[in-house]
Amino acid sequence: MRIDLNADLGEGFGPWRMGEDEALLDVLSSANIACGFHAGDPLIMQRTVEAALARGVDVGAHVGFPDIQGFGRRRMDVPAPELAAMVTYQLGALAGIARAAGHRMTHMSFHGALGNLAAAEASVADPLVEAVARFDPEVTIVTSSSRAIEGAAARCGLRAAITFLADRAYHADGLLVPRRLPRSVIHDEAEVLQRVRLLLTEGVVVTYEGERLPTKADSILLHGDTAGAVDLARTIRREIEAAGGSVVPVSRIA
Amino acid sequence: MRIDLNADLGEGFGPWRMGEDEALLDVLSSANIACGFHAGDPLIMQRTVEAALARGVDVGAHVGFPDIQGFGRRRMDVPAPELAAMVTYQLGALAGIARAAGHRMTHMSFHGALGNLAAAEASVADPLVEAVARFDPEVTIVTSSSRAIEGAAARCGLRAAITFLADRAYHADGLLVPRRLPRSVIHDEAEVLQRVRLLLTEGVVVTYEGERLPTKADSILLHGDTAGAVDLARTIRREIEAAGGSVVPVSRIA
Amino acid sequence: MRIDLNADLGEGFGPWRMGEDEALLDVLSSANIACGFHAGDPLIMQRTVEAALARGVDVGAHVGFPDIQGFGRRRMDVPAPELAAMVTYQLGALAGIARAAGHRMTHMSFHGALGNLAAAEASVADPLVEAVARFDPEVTIVTSSSRAIEGAAARCGLRAAITFLADRAYHADGLLVPRRLPRSVIHDEAEVLQRVRLLLTEGVVVTYEGERLPTKADSILLHGDTAGAVDLARTIRREIEAAGGSVVPVSRIA
Amino acid sequence: MRIDLNADLGEGFGPWRMGEDEALLDVLSSANIACGFHAGDPLIMQRTVEAALARGVDVGAHVGFPDIQGFGRRRMDVPAPELAAMVTYQLGALAGIARAAGHRMTHMSFHGALGNLAAAEASVADPLVEAVARFDPEVTIVTSSSRAIEGAAARCGLRAAITFLADRAYHADGLLVPRRLPRSVIHDEAEVLQRVRLLLTEGVVVTYEGERLPTKADSILLHGDTAGAVDLARTIRREIEAAGGSVVPVSRIA
Repeated sequence: MRIDLNADLGEGFGPWRMGEDEALLDVLSSANIACGFHAGDPLIMQRTVEAALARGVDVGAHVGFPDIQGFGRRRMDVPAPELAAMVTYQLGALAGIARAAGHRMTHMSFHGALGNLAAAEASVADPLVEAVARFDPEVTIVTSSSRAIEGAAARCGLRAAITFLADRAYHADGLLVPRRLPRSVIHDEAEVLQRVRLLLTEGVVVTYEGERLPTKADSILLHGDTAGAVDLARTIRREIEAAGGSVVPVSRIA
Repeated sequence: MRIDLNADLGEGFGPWRMGEDEALLDVLSSANIACGFHAGDPLIMQRTVEAALARGVDVGAHVGFPDIQGFGRRRMDVPAPELAAMVTYQLGALAGIARAAGHRMTHMSFHGALGNLAAAEASVADPLVEAVARFDPEVTIVTSSSRAIEGAAARCGLRAAITFLADRAYHADGLLVPRRLPRSVIHDEAEVLQRVRLLLTEGVVVTYEGERLPTKADSILLHGDTAGAVDLARTIRREIEAAGGSVVPVSRIA
Repeated sequence: MRIDLNADLGEGFGPWRMGEDEALLDVLSSANIACGFHAGDPLIMQRTVEAALARGVDVGAHVGFPDIQGFGRRRMDVPAPELAAMVTYQLGALAGIARAAGHRMTHMSFHGALGNLAAAEASVADPLVEAVARFDPEVTIVTSSSRAIEGAAARCGLRAAITFLADRAYHADGLLVPRRLPRSVIHDEAEVLQRVRLLLTEGVVVTYEGERLPTKADSILLHGDTAGAVDLARTIRREIEAAGGSVVPVSRIA
Repeated sequence: MRIDLNADLGEGFGPWRMGEDEALLDVLSSANIACGFHAGDPLIMQRTVEAALARGVDVGAHVGFPDIQGFGRRRMDVPAPELAAMVTYQLGALAGIARAAGHRMTHMSFHGALGNLAAAEASVADPLVEAVARFDPEVTIVTSSSRAIEGAAARCGLRAAITFLADRAYHADGLLVPRRLPRSVIHDEAEVLQRVRLLLTEGVVVTYEGERLPTKADSILLHGDTAGAVDLARTIRREIEAAGGSVVPVSRIA
């Protein structure tokens, strides 16, 4: 079994930091890096790329709404052609920083409210995924399970890697339960770990509604916002390796 | 004689526009496009790139301070390593938009206060030009005459194309007279045209101090902020062609 | 008959301008001034306030979403308590600039997507209007007809002045037809003028659906984005005065 | 002896936080609150004002350059009239939020690079302090010792309260040694405490150059960026009270 461990890194801005990027970089195999729209700035992006390169970690663009103050979590009604241009801009910025650092951008994912929107609506997923394909057909789209995004990627000839959010509740259609609903985020670490085990051993997630849903996963999304989260990430990695699995970057999965 | 005609385009933001981009695109051979730091946004950048592509006009990144409200005209004390990351970010963003549009970014130039700073101080020019070279050694640096920038480009193995600002006064060292000084900007069109003629026929500019300064120019910078400016641009192009010269993009000059 | 003529002014940003503010200031009696969230910056706000003061024109805060690039026209999902804080911030900023200039802020209105949202949903109008009342119970809310905003103002003890948008189509419930729908904006000047006349003489607007809707108006909203718009504004003022009406600032209406 | 203890609060932005505001609020008597230009946003401002009000802590506007990403620490070349408008805007925003919360803005101070500039150059201090006086002549200017700012305040009829930065080195002219110089920031807590004691008992600070400089202080600036800093703040307060002094808000000092 080969699986990727990825996380959202570089989510600081100017003088502020978020998450334990350094500690996480020793655990994961792929980093999704904020591109200055919902978080991140050029210097943070560059340092995160350099730190990833030093550890052989893949880098991808974590693309969001243009809303630093709202951390990309507020839906904005932007027409799709303008959203597509924003996606291209962010891909270019991160790819440029990777290139200048001697690294290579291998993947991209959608952040926050933009991710929820694209995962739920084909009329958004289609133009945004097409923008990715026009930018670079070699880029892998990393996404939680979404018929809209996976379908768009297939039509555009892009690889999609499905990432599993062990601490988030799923609906029966495979979409994430929105954060504003109760019990959408699972805070109990033992339960999170149990969900990872069920996925790895049986390929199943228990949904918000309590059903067993067969689930494919190329990757698991880790967090680094607390010391506990980093410990949990390490535990997940150890479990995978103890079970004979190997953790590989997203570019070597799909 | 082969010479490039270039101009700064895409200097709108959101609902606002600046300059007669459409009219100018029929006159010039290379466009310097704002990258969202001092002006421009993803949609404006994309449309400007597409319009340039449709006319066979070269596109380059016009790179500035992160200060939309000040239009990049206010010097900011940003440490050089962070400035270099900002340059890389902007190059990547425009190159990405060009790539997605089926075009290619051929050159870059520094805007406003960042341009003045880099032209005057090698301690700034060096890391910024190195950032360009790390991003892409094929990019040409378009600059008004500057020992700092030209020297840095030579050391990094980058081509530099010298652009002539016909409506700006020059000091004897070839640097532009800062805008805040009296008579730094020449508003009389006849005088501007006369300066172009003197450059084309004798390779000379008359300095702020009144001396004749031998001046190399690969390109002439045009403006499009008024109807008169566009007419002047057309007149300059006609003069070049009437004298048997040919107007070619910056990628075919240097 | 006493009626106010108001317009949205100060809608530039940094180097960019929008609309013929100077010309309009000679026609209107009240100015709604952008507060730096969807347009405007401190210097533009100050100059607009000073120009209004010099002509005896009332100033109010034109309050919008925090989205300069989108000009406040993109709906953003911001929780109501945070929206309320944003409203207070903008009111304070404009009131402060008015106070420092020796003027007084008399009114406020909601701009763009925020205005549409507040006009349509009491769950938004209530907390925002309460924020206005907490800031200053003497402020008049200028709004196109909206049960949500008028009701909230009544409950909070605030005056509401209803403004008529002569170039916008109305639904039978008195709400504006959204801009994205066809024929929501009336471009024919003769028709716009005819709608003003019908309002002034009969107190009626013909709705999008073709019905005659009795309509109260304390004010008419003028535009200054084109030379034609300013001429139309002048014509409207002349019609009011020729009919024996008088144009007075919003603070002397309600 | 009556002395104020003040600190810079509300220095988060969107999802990010900086400093232990809650803990500090129990120690200090006056809070300088970021106004959304170098840090802070409307919701953070409102919550900080409410928390201060609940503890009887004075609130003032901490006014900075418009540069969130640079945290107001990068000097920007903004013409003085525009800087003055920016000061007025920030004063108005915080005063408005205080007013809506049932509190009152009593003071203001300049942050970061703007503070250094105003403290050093009368040509900047004069127009900015005049802007404060035009906004509200009752506002107290809180400043580290500066002939430029104190002189401007005196000419404008504003109270100035001198605040002592116990962890920053001073030059013989009373100005702070810039952060970029070695030993400009004193990290040793014992030494910081010793400097406070020397100030309180003898009214003296030992300068960067090693001289004893008689120093007046109405206030001491505390920090809350680390757990150690908050402990130090508590120790300073205890020392003052043990020596029979009393800690009072800035509005009851000057």
